Amino acid sequence: MVRHVDINVDSGESFGRYVLGTDEIFNYVTSANIACGFHAGDPSVMRRTVKSAKLRGVEVGAHPGFPDLMGFGRRGMEVSKEDLINYILYQVGALEGVARAEGVSLQHVKLHGALYNMAWVRKDYAEALAEAVRLINPSLIVVAPPYSEMERATREAGLKVAKEFFLDRNYLPDGRLVPRSESNALIRNVSEAVERALKAVSEGVVKAVNGEQLNVEVDTICVHGDTPEAVEMARALKDRLIEAGIKVSPMKVFI
Amino acid sequence: MVRHVDINVDSGESFGRYVLGTDEIFNYVTSANIACGFHAGDPSVMRRTVKSAKLRGVEVGAHPGFPDLMGFGRRGMEVSKEDLINYILYQVGALEGVARAEGVSLQHVKLHGALYNMAWVRKDYAEALAEAVRLINPSLIVVAPPYSEMERATREAGLKVAKEFFLDRNYLPDGRLVPRSESNALIRNVSEAVERALKAVSEGVVKAVNGEQLNVEVDTICVHGDTPEAVEMARALKDRLIEAGIKVSPMKVFI
Amino acid sequence: MVRHVDINVDSGESFGRYVLGTDEIFNYVTSANIACGFHAGDPSVMRRTVKSAKLRGVEVGAHPGFPDLMGFGRRGMEVSKEDLINYILYQVGALEGVARAEGVSLQHVKLHGALYNMAWVRKDYAEALAEAVRLINPSLIVVAPPYSEMERATREAGLKVAKEFFLDRNYLPDGRLVPRSESNALIRNVSEAVERALKAVSEGVVKAVNGEQLNVEVDTICVHGDTPEAVEMARALKDRLIEAGIKVSPMKVFI
Amino acid sequence: MVRHVDINVDSGESFGRYVLGTDEIFNYVTSANIACGFHAGDPSVMRRTVKSAKLRGVEVGAHPGFPDLMGFGRRGMEVSKEDLINYILYQVGALEGVARAEGVSLQHVKLHGALYNMAWVRKDYAEALAEAVRLINPSLIVVAPPYSEMERATREAGLKVAKEFFLDRNYLPDGRLVPRSESNALIRNVSEAVERALKAVSEGVVKAVNGEQLNVEVDTICVHGDTPEAVEMARALKDRLIEAGIKVSPMKVFI
Repeated sequence: MVRHVDINVDSGESFGRYVLGTDEIFNYVTSANIACGFHAGDPSVMRRTVKSAKLRGVEVGAHPGFPDLMGFGRRGMEVSKEDLINYILYQVGALEGVARAEGVSLQHVKLHGALYNMAWVRKDYAEALAEAVRLINPSLIVVAPPYSEMERATREAGLKVAKEFFLDRNYLPDGRLVPRSESNALIRNVSEAVERALKAVSEGVVKAVNGEQLNVEVDTICVHGDTPEAVEMARALKDRLIEAGIKVSPMKVFI
Repeated sequence: MVRHVDINVDSGESFGRYVLGTDEIFNYVTSANIACGFHAGDPSVMRRTVKSAKLRGVEVGAHPGFPDLMGFGRRGMEVSKEDLINYILYQVGALEGVARAEGVSLQHVKLHGALYNMAWVRKDYAEALAEAVRLINPSLIVVAPPYSEMERATREAGLKVAKEFFLDRNYLPDGRLVPRSESNALIRNVSEAVERALKAVSEGVVKAVNGEQLNVEVDTICVHGDTPEAVEMARALKDRLIEAGIKVSPMKVFI
Repeated sequence: MVRHVDINVDSGESFGRYVLGTDEIFNYVTSANIACGFHAGDPSVMRRTVKSAKLRGVEVGAHPGFPDLMGFGRRGMEVSKEDLINYILYQVGALEGVARAEGVSLQHVKLHGALYNMAWVRKDYAEALAEAVRLINPSLIVVAPPYSEMERATREAGLKVAKEFFLDRNYLPDGRLVPRSESNALIRNVSEAVERALKAVSEGVVKAVNGEQLNVEVDTICVHGDTPEAVEMARALKDRLIEAGIKVSPMKVFI
Repeated sequence: MVRHVDINVDSGESFGRYVLGTDEIFNYVTSANIACGFHAGDPSVMRRTVKSAKLRGVEVGAHPGFPDLMGFGRRGMEVSKEDLINYILYQVGALEGVARAEGVSLQHVKLHGALYNMAWVRKDYAEALAEAVRLINPSLIVVAPPYSEMERATREAGLKVAKEFFLDRNYLPDGRLVPRSESNALIRNVSEAVERALKAVSEGVVKAVNGEQLNVEVDTICVHGDTPEAVEMARALKDRLIEAGIKVSPMKVFI
């Protein structure tokens, strides 16, 4: 049986005159998580990003975040479960509307930034995500870390889940990411990052910061596209995976 | 043949802790124009408003406005045609997403405030509306003033149009509304307003501020719901129309 | 020696077309905390509120909050200390600018909502407040709960502090407020609230929800002005204090 | 008598994670117009920009714009005169507050983008600017085009005016700028732009797009700092002015 893996990237993060990231990355990924106007993105940026993804055969998903443009959605916020469900409905719906104008249907939903990190471990936030996806379109795949509250809640809601691995992030022994505030949060060496990812995909293990071996399950690998180095890393990843006989395909092909 | 007319009201105009308007008005109207978060409304307000409309059998439409919460969408803005198309796609899509969670499909689209007034006479804004509706869902009815650029553009795009009459607004001889900045912009006398509307519906005429008789075509009558007096006026209108043998029905029944 | 106490109220909480609260309350208070545009308020609301306070002899202070209009500043946010200092500088400066146009100088600063509650116990937030006030205008009085991190930090920075008591809120045994999410957060009975406040001012004690007696120090009493009942409660408080021989004066008179 | 001229640049236009412009330009200018959070800028960006300007001996002014972050303040808006006055008070006050934390006083005020262009010819907007500056701090210098409504209104209000010339913009025969939407709006050739500016400063004339000679008065020259080419142009300008014996000084030195 052929082993498949998806590569996803956050995109559509420009806003008005502000430019962030480059569609160059679309040559090396299979799924794009598009910001929906709360933490980044505006309607015209969203439209251009969907169009650009479509041209390059990249599948599109919604990337809902906290309503905090000034903090780029990277700051924790206390939001009621009811409000959070509605924020996700709103953002997914907005992207669906914009994408339909380009003849594109959504493939998946992935939370952004602090919201993703909080829903990793908070039951209420994880359930809000599952409930929103169930209500708006239960055929959407939810991207979530393995063994997280998010994975549990979406699975219990009967939704499809794509388990995510982070290409350039170090892991804590409990399976979570080393916070960005720590100096060793990021792996900057391209070949180290790529070999780790390959091992995670093919053997289901990754080494945590304390040297312990963690079990992981990998359906999709998250890369970044906001620096030339990040684009270079994504390219190396894709090449290495193909070389190792792994098929790089959009998650909807195999989930 | 039975004569039908729709009654529409702007709704969902609260925001966060700020409350504006009352769902009491839903007892006297057939269509609700729901604010989509740009000039008013937030995701939770939108959800509650859709739910409340559904409970009372009121049809739901999107009410896109300029991105100007501080000015409640009542201030003119210069927006490029491309951006405007995308702003409308975004807002309609967001409401669709929220409404789907309540099992509700949209019936119509009506622009809000300054955007409505500008698209009345500006070809680029009118065409942006038509283009957005055509792209996102060509079965949506567009609410527009008769003889306006909006009516022309939506008709040319092959879309359905509901021609609108304003219950409590005075008309200029050219068929436009007396601006809110003028002292005689509003008709405050309930029976005067109601009789004008009845005449507009049954005879197709209304008297302009200068005494001239204007031809009008009326598919839907716009009422307000943000004061007790406004609710009273809507109630009197509905009663009078029914008394005169006119059927008060959602626009989708007869358009 | 005459015993003085100040009565303060949150005000200027309207935004654009949205109206919240009434200046009627200004007849019964000596200090107004004016929202600065982050959680509520806009430049024109701020100007009108300063003008109205001045006309009634009410002293004016800044009421900085989190940048969260949708949540009215009542939701916790993780903000870096550096950003928080700058958010407070910005908001206090903005109000100073608007107030100067009315010939009014600021008397005090009081944090709003979730920011106030978090700075009560979080050292970094408390220190951000003290640092911002020290930098922008060290003669401003800081309103803070007694025994709080806020009180400690402002005192250590050499700033003047007004210790605050909440008229209509129940207290936990640790001296903090019962959260709004609890059913017994609010005291709704006017005479009960007023007698509690009088006892707090004159005897320095208040009964916590578990029946325990808490020591308090009271320079200023916080009242609400957003409902007719709240205005009634403020009026009763002022009358009762005066009747008991306590002088109701702006905090700058005695701090 | 020594001939002085100021060089000004729009700065502090980053927002949250979005970076725009570079402080590199501060080596070649004498005055910085700092965005105040409405069209660009946030409190922490403002603080860093003031600090950076101070370190390089660059004087600081407020750069108020329309409340339109998504449009970068470059889109026309209809705002009432009263609201506009208050928007300017708010923004200037906010920057004053932030600047005071760095021990810096403001030197000037210059409107941004569409607001600048509209106040060039609209009496109500020009008067709003003059009124706001008069109320908040009449010692601030107002930057305005010669022969504009802005210049007239600020002069009539008894305020100091610095007349502005645009280094890289073509002029219409009526003395206004060729709109950015036109292909010949910008002068991209460095030496052409610099020689034009020198002639404008030393002889008081510039050639309009139709070849006609326009009279100009120049106290300050506006340069851009958001591209490497723009920085290059500013450097060439400063060098050429000094070479020609003109003293490049902050406007407050000679106005």
